Amino acid sequence: MQLGMIGLGRMGANIVRRIVKDGHTAVGYARRESQLAEFTEELGDKFTGATDYKSFVEQLEAPRIVWVMIPAGATGAVIDEVAELLDPGDIIIDGGNSRYHEDIKRSKALAPKGIHYMDIGTSGGVWGLERGYCLMIGGEVEQVAHIEPLLRSIAPGVEAAPRTPGRTGEPSRAEQGYLHCGPAGAGHFVKMVHNGIEYGAMAAYAEGMNILHKANIGAQAGDAHSAEETPLDNPEYYQYDIDVPEVTELWRRGSVVASWLLDLTAQQLLLDPELSSFGGRVSDSGEGRWTISAAIDEGVPAPVLSAALFARFSSRGESLYADKVLSAMRKGFGGHNELPAK
Amino acid sequence: MQLGMIGLGRMGANIVRRIVKDGHTAVGYARRESQLAEFTEELGDKFTGATDYKSFVEQLEAPRIVWVMIPAGATGAVIDEVAELLDPGDIIIDGGNSRYHEDIKRSKALAPKGIHYMDIGTSGGVWGLERGYCLMIGGEVEQVAHIEPLLRSIAPGVEAAPRTPGRTGEPSRAEQGYLHCGPAGAGHFVKMVHNGIEYGAMAAYAEGMNILHKANIGAQAGDAHSAEETPLDNPEYYQYDIDVPEVTELWRRGSVVASWLLDLTAQQLLLDPELSSFGGRVSDSGEGRWTISAAIDEGVPAPVLSAALFARFSSRGESLYADKVLSAMRKGFGGHNELPAK
Amino acid sequence: MQLGMIGLGRMGANIVRRIVKDGHTAVGYARRESQLAEFTEELGDKFTGATDYKSFVEQLEAPRIVWVMIPAGATGAVIDEVAELLDPGDIIIDGGNSRYHEDIKRSKALAPKGIHYMDIGTSGGVWGLERGYCLMIGGEVEQVAHIEPLLRSIAPGVEAAPRTPGRTGEPSRAEQGYLHCGPAGAGHFVKMVHNGIEYGAMAAYAEGMNILHKANIGAQAGDAHSAEETPLDNPEYYQYDIDVPEVTELWRRGSVVASWLLDLTAQQLLLDPELSSFGGRVSDSGEGRWTISAAIDEGVPAPVLSAALFARFSSRGESLYADKVLSAMRKGFGGHNELPAK
Amino acid sequence: MQLGMIGLGRMGANIVRRIVKDGHTAVGYARRESQLAEFTEELGDKFTGATDYKSFVEQLEAPRIVWVMIPAGATGAVIDEVAELLDPGDIIIDGGNSRYHEDIKRSKALAPKGIHYMDIGTSGGVWGLERGYCLMIGGEVEQVAHIEPLLRSIAPGVEAAPRTPGRTGEPSRAEQGYLHCGPAGAGHFVKMVHNGIEYGAMAAYAEGMNILHKANIGAQAGDAHSAEETPLDNPEYYQYDIDVPEVTELWRRGSVVASWLLDLTAQQLLLDPELSSFGGRVSDSGEGRWTISAAIDEGVPAPVLSAALFARFSSRGESLYADKVLSAMRKGFGGHNELPAK
Repeated sequence: MQLGMIGLGRMGANIVRRIVKDGHTAVGYARRESQLAEFTEELGDKFTGATDYKSFVEQLEAPRIVWVMIPAGATGAVIDEVAELLDPGDIIIDGGNSRYHEDIKRSKALAPKGIHYMDIGTSGGVWGLERGYCLMIGGEVEQVAHIEPLLRSIAPGVEAAPRTPGRTGEPSRAEQGYLHCGPAGAGHFVKMVHNGIEYGAMAAYAEGMNILHKANIGAQAGDAHSAEETPLDNPEYYQYDIDVPEVTELWRRGSVVASWLLDLTAQQLLLDPELSSFGGRVSDSGEGRWTISAAIDEGVPAPVLSAALFARFSSRGESLYADKVLSAMRKGFGGHNELPAK
Repeated sequence: MQLGMIGLGRMGANIVRRIVKDGHTAVGYARRESQLAEFTEELGDKFTGATDYKSFVEQLEAPRIVWVMIPAGATGAVIDEVAELLDPGDIIIDGGNSRYHEDIKRSKALAPKGIHYMDIGTSGGVWGLERGYCLMIGGEVEQVAHIEPLLRSIAPGVEAAPRTPGRTGEPSRAEQGYLHCGPAGAGHFVKMVHNGIEYGAMAAYAEGMNILHKANIGAQAGDAHSAEETPLDNPEYYQYDIDVPEVTELWRRGSVVASWLLDLTAQQLLLDPELSSFGGRVSDSGEGRWTISAAIDEGVPAPVLSAALFARFSSRGESLYADKVLSAMRKGFGGHNELPAK
Repeated sequence: MQLGMIGLGRMGANIVRRIVKDGHTAVGYARRESQLAEFTEELGDKFTGATDYKSFVEQLEAPRIVWVMIPAGATGAVIDEVAELLDPGDIIIDGGNSRYHEDIKRSKALAPKGIHYMDIGTSGGVWGLERGYCLMIGGEVEQVAHIEPLLRSIAPGVEAAPRTPGRTGEPSRAEQGYLHCGPAGAGHFVKMVHNGIEYGAMAAYAEGMNILHKANIGAQAGDAHSAEETPLDNPEYYQYDIDVPEVTELWRRGSVVASWLLDLTAQQLLLDPELSSFGGRVSDSGEGRWTISAAIDEGVPAPVLSAALFARFSSRGESLYADKVLSAMRKGFGGHNELPAK
Repeated sequence: MQLGMIGLGRMGANIVRRIVKDGHTAVGYARRESQLAEFTEELGDKFTGATDYKSFVEQLEAPRIVWVMIPAGATGAVIDEVAELLDPGDIIIDGGNSRYHEDIKRSKALAPKGIHYMDIGTSGGVWGLERGYCLMIGGEVEQVAHIEPLLRSIAPGVEAAPRTPGRTGEPSRAEQGYLHCGPAGAGHFVKMVHNGIEYGAMAAYAEGMNILHKANIGAQAGDAHSAEETPLDNPEYYQYDIDVPEVTELWRRGSVVASWLLDLTAQQLLLDPELSSFGGRVSDSGEGRWTISAAIDEGVPAPVLSAALFARFSSRGESLYADKVLSAMRKGFGGHNELPAK
């Protein structure tokens, strides 16, 4: 089967590599000729490139399959431009991190032209080439079936994890690593929630590791009887020097919290045991925010996922004004002056 | 009635002033003669002082009433020392911020000697002299009744707030601003929860004010299409320059969030509209922590009170290691590098 | 001055009463003649009514001031309909609980017609007639100045609270209980955050009171050594029967958490000490949700305000599926069966 | 090597099975003869049993290794009783879920007798026989080394997970699935935090899955314009019928949230797709609570872990009083009556 890929950044490029390795062919769009040249050299005659959309579209056989894999903020404009060149029956896929609201709008806008729209939330990060990409798909039943050979090549495949006990026979799509989640937007919706969960799980590890990291606070505590500070009641309980990197390695085997995130954490801590290459300003990139908005719209509690999101905001200094207000209030009712940093 | 006060810091001194003003007499203990001299000059023959416990106790008429008003960390040792000098039937009161666990232990330890122990959680801060102190009392029924004339002088009195509709006749103790909450520890237990609530309410204002303060973010937002940052979807919705100090003043009248904390906030913001005298390191002093511990012991959810406490920890940099872990994870799965501070 | 009021529900009616009492006149729109008749009888010739918009508009002197005070969901359609009948220079005010996004859209839509749009977030609830309404205003500088006589009559006035120390001279608008917060939408923005704070502060009290309410759990605890339950380590610390209604009354005087919300809580607990008339299903009505959305858009942490919102969702059973997932996981890794309700 | 095991419940029995399978021998204590008989039949001459401690101790060769694997509430008394029968140089291990405070006390109490105390936090649940147990160990360096042959048999071994890139040569203890974390209590401390993280991660999945589960709320939403309810602004965004069981299966391969907890969740959802065998009352068993207490003592923020814990409390109805307070407040300021359950 043939795939057209717009955007040959890390993820787009690796998706192309996975399908070509499986015997499919690809047409790639990139702005710079040099980028395409590298690809042609690497992939041989299974790959052709284009630096303009017209040529890109012409190299694709109808019904065309166009996968757009670029930053979410730029996706809409590209889809609009490319759609002008497509024919009825063609398929356009947003594989990036768009908000699912956009998918609903775009699919409606493209329907009158007979162009099929799909959104494919794609998880896998820098590891996708090797591990395969987990694909969460929104769109029409027939189109998902149509592109299934490609999906199978991109996804991890059933052998990527032990089969769930009780699952037998032909593996389901989900077992192979791709799933048609519903109509337009459903793929990005599920991917959004996936990332929301990711934020929460990451924060769970991070908070726990912080507690381990401070477990020797009793050895350092002063003897302050100031009304501004809480003395540690039981310093004898906090005398441990826990080797956090080794603990993360330990938990990878046999524990309840074993996970791929933990594998990666252990890797990073092996490279940088003190995490001295990090300053602690944690980015967030949309899905975590949208997950909370969806929870609020649905009236569903999300205290853990939201706490994880807000901790990221706070890591970037965004609590500062609120904290000053608190200190001002304390001065107001109790005459308390802020203590200096230690 | 006569009161012995150990500790003539702000709160101890003002309690003495309130009772003397109401016709009672006081004996004060302080380490420095000079501190006592000031008091004697101010209060005349209603006040006598001592710089040693023996003399302090001798100046008190039996059954003695000894109120200890010093930092929580030092209270236990002082009570032990003074109790050695007291007689059966005497009363010793911890008016500071001890954990209520201590009260239970102390009351048991003093009972065999016939000494009555009371804990009086005292709220009012620097305003107590003028407003009166809200008194939350743990101890025995008879002893609370015995010292009631003093309590009435220290507490705000019924006229400090409009009577609750439906309350008629002789005002209850609670209406006068003091309440016997239960046996030993009950006073500090109620005071502890009071402060836990205080933390939560303060954080509610602070978070809301932060949202107001950032309401013009749409006027500043860049046009980043980076995968590391969430672009603001609707900058047109965040173009407000809200005058936060005036808003706090506004809400003092007629709004649902009118409160004494808000009164103080408006005062502080009038003095320092940009809060530039604060660095945003918010102290916490025990009760907020113990409130969460009590909630956990009881199996009672306290998501708001705990979030307020943790925000204070975070304001002091205590999230840093967790934040670094998050950035390390992001690097691990997505190759993300931390963005520099703006 | 003359005010036109659309919607004579509790708040609309009481606003009319306040301005008429202050010497202004009003024209009221209501669907039912009977409702208007009551008003005419009560207010005499200061009030005239209309059951159709045309007549309503005709009774107003230009430039007309039309205040719409109806549920948020219906406001947009009414404004559209009435605006058709207005002339350039007229003012239309949304005093209800619209999302501020709507204000921005409406003000833009009405500008070409020369109609001035204002949004006035109005706090005060059922108490506004007596206490006055706290008014948070978005709109144009000139129009706010124009209607100021009405605002002064509706707002509580400076005497509703002690002046903040340091404020002297002619009271500012905020001190009188109304404030021009910014252009269209700013009023509802500030009101939205006000309600977000309200949710957080309410939850702070509610959580604290729950901790007080369960303070006798040690007297009831069994002696379970089951792996499914956490035994209470120190039952001796939880032996208190706290009189929560009296505690709320107590805190009204002299404590740091004194507030209008606490006044109301004490009132309700006097009427119904066991809260037996409530089932614990807590509604939320928009502003709390929008506050969190604004925080997320701004990248500002709101852990307390969001925890308060989510607790309301949870009170309505919306955690159920998540809770079942947790129990299923526990069964999965530990073979744990759910314990029955006690 | 020989191990004495007190408590032949699921975990104790499976630990015995793992060591015997690896060539070690065991002496088991159980109250009932019948339980021992089954074991003797299953394990042959590698196992002998005792129904009294004296006989149990006599069957062990000095220096004895006694592993106590019983519910935390009963462990202390058993250790006290058995220790009376042990000799200097013997080792006693608490493999259960004691709070680490107990370990510190016990190790101090046993030291004068020359008995070595170890705490081994043991994770693995019902899967440990097959997967091996992750062992978090507190105690003395020499004793850990002494029992290492047993630890290697009980732990999963390095092959249980792919080696972390960069780790070469002889696998570290952590890689083999056991780790000496520090002196007495360190093992249970790390296990405690492990479970705290487990609670947080579980809640992250559960919240996310709840959001997926409610993704069709727009198809059901009424058209309420009540001030008591927030109408759904954009019902078109919530029209998805997500197959949550298949999504959990999907995420097992290639996604960032792949984990052992997710594996188990997918298993449970395959067995019971609607989770109809669960009522949603989620137990918690100590470690989650103690983790928050440790965080608070250390002054480390734990908003996610605490939110997860409180959601469990709430699932068991423990928010009810707080929720009633909120409804009472709403009635107080706004005259709102609670809406009935739908």
